[in-house]
Amino acid sequence: MSKLPIFKSVEGHHHAVPFFLCRENCGDVGFEIAGGKIDHLLNQDVADVHSHNVDEYYLLISPNEGAAEIEVHIDGVVTRHTSPDVIHVPAGKPHKFVTRKVETGTFCFGIFVGEG
Amino acid sequence: MSKLPIFKSVEGHHHAVPFFLCRENCGDVGFEIAGGKIDHLLNQDVADVHSHNVDEYYLLISPNEGAAEIEVHIDGVVTRHTSPDVIHVPAGKPHKFVTRKVETGTFCFGIFVGEG
Repeated sequence: MSKLPIFKSVEGHHHAVPFFLCRENCGDVGFEIAGGKIDHLLNQDVADVHSHNVDEYYLLISPNEGAAEIEVHIDGVVTRHTSPDVIHVPAGKPHKFVTRKVETGTFCFGIFVGEG
Repeated sequence: MSKLPIFKSVEGHHHAVPFFLCRENCGDVGFEIAGGKIDHLLNQDVADVHSHNVDEYYLLISPNEGAAEIEVHIDGVVTRHTSPDVIHVPAGKPHKFVTRKVETGTFCFGIFVGEG
């Protein structure tokens, strides 16, 4: 497989987004997995509030259970999620997330359903 | 979302397999994500050689790039992969993997395409 991640631009994101599984390395499998480590992003927004035209699932994981927390904003509603967790962002809903607690080796993946 | 992971039995695996994203917590999205931390599995098989009736992708990640390596056996062919990497296991192909290098916080996810 290609050297990972593969950087692609995603609407609403400040920087090119790293992809691990996408059309470019895996063909059309029905979803794409982006994201990466967030341990350097405490109290930072990864992106402006934005929306996608497909459902997205965040997968939040960290070496130690409970060691990471993200604040998820979806359509103006704020919830807080502790690792490990999966959070559904419905297609078309304006959203962003902010890292509120983190440890080295924490990852947050965004899985785009129907992409790829 | 439900408390994660959700344990389910998978043919060929020695123990119930932890799922993070699956039909039970996310409905039918076209794939399921299983797996978890492998930092306790150095030089161990996670499962007997087995096959699935759907394509699978392994996603190998670790806090530090290059800190984890898995030996992937697919249909008798052995390859070695360094984190981060994605490895495709075609539907029906007998496979297993063995962790050959690891650090705390290393994860290996198995993404089953067409499940869920």
